[in-house]
Amino acid sequence: MITGATIVGVGGLLSLRWADFDSVHALSKSYKNEHHTIEHDQKKFPTYTRNEVSRHNSVDTGVWITFKGNVYDITKFISHHPGGSHTIMMGAGGDVEPFWQTYTVHHANEVQNLLREYQIGVLDPTDHMKELEAKEISKTIGEDDPYSGDPTRSPLLTVLSKKPFNAETPSKLLPPTYLTPTEVFFVRNHLPVPEVDPQDYRLSVCLGTDGDPDNLQVLAEFTLDDLKTKFEPHSVDSVIQCSGNRRSDLKRIKEIKGLDWKVGAIGNARWTGVRLIDLLKSLGIDSEKYQEQIIKHIQMEGLDCDMSGQSYGASISSDLVFDQKKNVILAYQMNGEPLTRDHGYPVRLVAPGVTGARNVKWLSKVILSHEESNSHWQRKDYKSFSPNVDMFNLNFDESASVQDTPVQSAICDPADGERISLKNTDEKSGLSLPVRGYAFSGGGKMIIRVDVSVDGGKSWITAKLEDVPKDERGLPDYTNRNQTYSWTRWSIDVPISDELVKNKTGQMEILCRAFDSAYNSQPERPETIWNVRGVMNNSWHKIKVELTIQ
Amino acid sequence: MITGATIVGVGGLLSLRWADFDSVHALSKSYKNEHHTIEHDQKKFPTYTRNEVSRHNSVDTGVWITFKGNVYDITKFISHHPGGSHTIMMGAGGDVEPFWQTYTVHHANEVQNLLREYQIGVLDPTDHMKELEAKEISKTIGEDDPYSGDPTRSPLLTVLSKKPFNAETPSKLLPPTYLTPTEVFFVRNHLPVPEVDPQDYRLSVCLGTDGDPDNLQVLAEFTLDDLKTKFEPHSVDSVIQCSGNRRSDLKRIKEIKGLDWKVGAIGNARWTGVRLIDLLKSLGIDSEKYQEQIIKHIQMEGLDCDMSGQSYGASISSDLVFDQKKNVILAYQMNGEPLTRDHGYPVRLVAPGVTGARNVKWLSKVILSHEESNSHWQRKDYKSFSPNVDMFNLNFDESASVQDTPVQSAICDPADGERISLKNTDEKSGLSLPVRGYAFSGGGKMIIRVDVSVDGGKSWITAKLEDVPKDERGLPDYTNRNQTYSWTRWSIDVPISDELVKNKTGQMEILCRAFDSAYNSQPERPETIWNVRGVMNNSWHKIKVELTIQ
Repeated sequence: MITGATIVGVGGLLSLRWADFDSVHALSKSYKNEHHTIEHDQKKFPTYTRNEVSRHNSVDTGVWITFKGNVYDITKFISHHPGGSHTIMMGAGGDVEPFWQTYTVHHANEVQNLLREYQIGVLDPTDHMKELEAKEISKTIGEDDPYSGDPTRSPLLTVLSKKPFNAETPSKLLPPTYLTPTEVFFVRNHLPVPEVDPQDYRLSVCLGTDGDPDNLQVLAEFTLDDLKTKFEPHSVDSVIQCSGNRRSDLKRIKEIKGLDWKVGAIGNARWTGVRLIDLLKSLGIDSEKYQEQIIKHIQMEGLDCDMSGQSYGASISSDLVFDQKKNVILAYQMNGEPLTRDHGYPVRLVAPGVTGARNVKWLSKVILSHEESNSHWQRKDYKSFSPNVDMFNLNFDESASVQDTPVQSAICDPADGERISLKNTDEKSGLSLPVRGYAFSGGGKMIIRVDVSVDGGKSWITAKLEDVPKDERGLPDYTNRNQTYSWTRWSIDVPISDELVKNKTGQMEILCRAFDSAYNSQPERPETIWNVRGVMNNSWHKIKVELTIQ
Repeated sequence: MITGATIVGVGGLLSLRWADFDSVHALSKSYKNEHHTIEHDQKKFPTYTRNEVSRHNSVDTGVWITFKGNVYDITKFISHHPGGSHTIMMGAGGDVEPFWQTYTVHHANEVQNLLREYQIGVLDPTDHMKELEAKEISKTIGEDDPYSGDPTRSPLLTVLSKKPFNAETPSKLLPPTYLTPTEVFFVRNHLPVPEVDPQDYRLSVCLGTDGDPDNLQVLAEFTLDDLKTKFEPHSVDSVIQCSGNRRSDLKRIKEIKGLDWKVGAIGNARWTGVRLIDLLKSLGIDSEKYQEQIIKHIQMEGLDCDMSGQSYGASISSDLVFDQKKNVILAYQMNGEPLTRDHGYPVRLVAPGVTGARNVKWLSKVILSHEESNSHWQRKDYKSFSPNVDMFNLNFDESASVQDTPVQSAICDPADGERISLKNTDEKSGLSLPVRGYAFSGGGKMIIRVDVSVDGGKSWITAKLEDVPKDERGLPDYTNRNQTYSWTRWSIDVPISDELVKNKTGQMEILCRAFDSAYNSQPERPETIWNVRGVMNNSWHKIKVELTIQ
C-alpha cells in the first residue's frame, strides 16, 4: 500500500526514475572493471594544473572539467545537457568521475565520443597522480579502525565527517527528484556501520514498563523473513531530516559544537516495511492494551554500538505508533530496493514527521515503556534551548526532546555564494533567475505556501508548489493537510532588478519561508532561535548570489 | 470523563474570579453608533426609478444596488467581494441596507469609500421616500431589528460591535483563571442570536456525499434529551480562539476590514457533551465506513441565519472527528453549566485545537460530506494570504481554510500602554515588574517554552509555565505533547534596567514568544504575516508600558 496523497500525479516521474536507476545499478557494478579508452595526448594539448582548471567554473570564465586526466571545455555544451544545465554546473572546474560513478548513464560510448570534441588539454601529471593516490589511500584504510568495515559511498555526497560517516546531499541534487536517490540521500551515522548477516538478524519486541533497562520481558523475536512474509507490506513517502539540518546558519552567529550541516541534511524517500502497529497487534497489544499497560513511549535500540557495547537508542511517543494514519514503519526497503548499509540494513524505523534521530537504523530492539529511552541521544541531546542558555546553564531534564519538527524551507538552487551569469536575451519581458527549493513540516502538516523575497522580506512573491495534490478542478486539495509526510518542492522565477540589469553586475540576496497547514511559519532570524545544541534551525533561509548580466 | 493532563492542580481557581471583576468594570466600553455620511448628489448623477434599478440584477444586465438613496453599478466589484459573489448577488437590483443591518461590517469607512467609486446615479425621490416610509412602519411594529432578541451581556466585556455582537475579554481577566469564566469569555457572533426552545431543538445528522446541499439524506435526528441521556458525557478542556485574535497589530501596519480584536479573542473552557464519534458510531458509521463513503469533511450548520434564511456554516476534516483522542464534542455544557445563548445554547460543536469559526454554535445539522462546507465563511473567509495579496488579486480557491491554529502567545498583564508606578523598596535585590500572559498552539501541540525580552529580542528570559503537567520527579511531563488543547498561562518578573531606575521614569517595551512541542515558534514581526483578511496573527506580542519609580 502506498500512503499519502502527495504521490498523486507523480507516478510517471517515478517510473522514469526507476528505469534510470536500473541502468545506473547495472553500470555501476561493472564500472570498476571497465577499461576506459580516452587516452592522454600530451603532444597535441597543453597541460593545465588543477588550480588553473578549477578557476574555469562559470559561463563567464568558461566551464572546464577533467575526466581521466584530460581537460575539457564544455561551455558550449551546458545548455544541451540532457540532465539540465544546473546539474552539469555542479562539476564545473572539477573532475566529473565521481558524478559519473553515480550517474553511470555517462559511461555510454556516445557520451565519451561527445566529450572528445571538447578536449582542450591534459591535466598536469603531478596533480593527476596526487588525486589518484588520494583515491587509493581512501580505499585501503587500516584494518584496526572500527570504521574500516564502513561501506563505500557515492563521491557525490558532501562529507562532513568520515568517522562516524556524516555527509549531506549537495543542495542542487535535491529539487530535481520527488524521491531523493538513495545513493545521494544524506547519511547521519553516530557510530560505525554494523555488518549484519540477514540470516542472523533478529528483531526483539520487549516490554520494559518497570523502567529498568536490564529487566526486559521479551515478547517476541522476528527474523527478517518473518517481517517480509508474515505482515502486509506498507509504503509511506516520508522525509527524514536531521535535527541539525541548517546548523551552519546558527554557527555563523556563535560557535556550536556539532556538524556543520548546510541545507542538505534532508531527503524524501519511499519507505516500505511492516507497520509497527500491525506487528504489535499480532502480539495482542492493541490500543486498549497499551493504555492499560501505560505504554507511553516506544524505545528503540540499534545494532550500531560503541566500543563499550553501548547501542544507539531513541524513543518516540506511543500515540504515534497506535495511530494507524501515522504509518510508523519497520522499513526494509528504501525507494523500492533493500535498505543500503548506510541507511540501516536490514531494518530501520521510519516515524514519518519525526526528526531523523528517532528513526533508528539497524533496528534490534523495540521496547514498550512508560518512559523515554535512557540513551543520551534521547535525554541529553537533540533538545533545544533559549538563546540565552549556554553549556554551563543548560538543564536537559526540563527541555522537551525533539520529535515532530517545525515548518522548514530552503533554497537549493542556486547555491549560497554562487556566481551566475545571465544572458539578457529579451529586454522587454525582463530578466529573471530560476530558483528552486524544498519545504516541509513535521507531524503530518502539509505545506500550503512558500514565499520568496529579494528585498529582505519587505515584499514577497509566492512560489509554485510541486508535489501538491489537486482536486478535480485542478485546485490544491488540502484533505491530507494533517497526514502529509513527504516534502513539497517549489520553484519560482525571481525578477532581476532594473538597477542590477543596468549595472550588469551585482549581488542579490534571496530568501524563502514556508507556511504549513496550521499556518505556522518560520522565524525570521537565526539569532532568535540560536541554541547551544544547534538544532531545529528553521529560520528564513537566505542565500547571496553574484550576478553578471551579459 | 475529563480529558487532558493540563487540568491537574487547578481546582479552586475558578472561585477566585469575581474578586478581580469589579476592578475592570471601567474597561467596558460602549459601542458608538456610526453616523453615515454618504449624501445624495442629484446635480451630478442621473435619476433612476426602483423599477429601472431592479432590472439590473445580473452580470449580463449589470449589477446595480441602492444605498441611502444613491444608485451604484457594482458589476466590476462582484468577484472581489470578500463575502463571496453569491452573497452579494442576493442584493442585486435592490437596496443593500437591510443586508448591511445584519452584516454590519459594511458600515466601515473603507466600504463607504469603495462604494463611492461605483456611484452612477440617484434613486428617484418618490421611490426613495416610499421605501423610507415602509421602513418606518416596520420599525414601529418591531420587525426592523433582527438583533432585538439578543441576550444581555456582562458589562465587563469590551464590545467591538453590537450587531452582530462581538466582544473580547479585557486582557487582564485572562491570566487569573485556568478556565475563563463564561460571563467574560469572548463572544464572536456572525448573525443575530437565535432563540431556541429546548423542547423543539433537533440535531439532524445527514449524509451529503453527492455535494448537492439540497440533496441530504437524513440519517437521524436527536433531541437535546437524547444527547444528554443516550450517550456518555465527555469533557475536554479546550481553548477557543477567534481567527482574528490580535488583528489590531496587523491593522496598525495597513488597514484591514474586520473587527479590531486585541489579545482577548481567546478563552479556555471545560466543554462537556457527546463525542461526535460516539454519536456517529451509534448510527453505524465507524472509521471503516467513513473511509468507504469518502467522508472527508464534517460540515455543520447553525440555527443562526440571515433574512434570506441562510445559516452560518463551516466544516472540519473528518479525520479529527474519527480520531478519538481529538475529542470533537457536541457540547451542551460550558464550565459545568448549560451553554449560554451567546455561546451556542443548547448545543455547539467544540473541535479542540481548531480555530473558533469552525466551532459552530446553535448547531442544527451535522453533514457528512466529501467536500468542505459551501458557506462563504468556509470558502471565502477565514483564509490567509501573502502580504502582497490585496482585495483585488486574492484567490480564495487556492488558499487553505484556517483549521488548526499556529503557536500563539500574548502578554495580558500589564496591558499595552499602561502607566505603572513601582515602589523601589529593596534596592539591593533590584526592581522588577510582574508580567503575565497566555500561550497556546493548535492541533494538540503542547507549549514547551515561553521567552520574554525587554531589549527587542536581543536577549531572552524564560517564563515560568503554569498548567503544565509534571512527572513524579517534578519535571515537565511531555507525554501529552500532541494532545494538549488547553492553554498554558505563564508569568515572569521582568527586571527593570538600572537606567530606568536611575531616571525614575521611562518607557519599557516587553515582548513574548512561545515554542510548541514541534518547536514551532512565532514570527517576529506582524508586517511579515500581514494579510488582507487580518487572520492568524501570531507574531511576537509586544507591549509598551510607562513606568514611574517611586
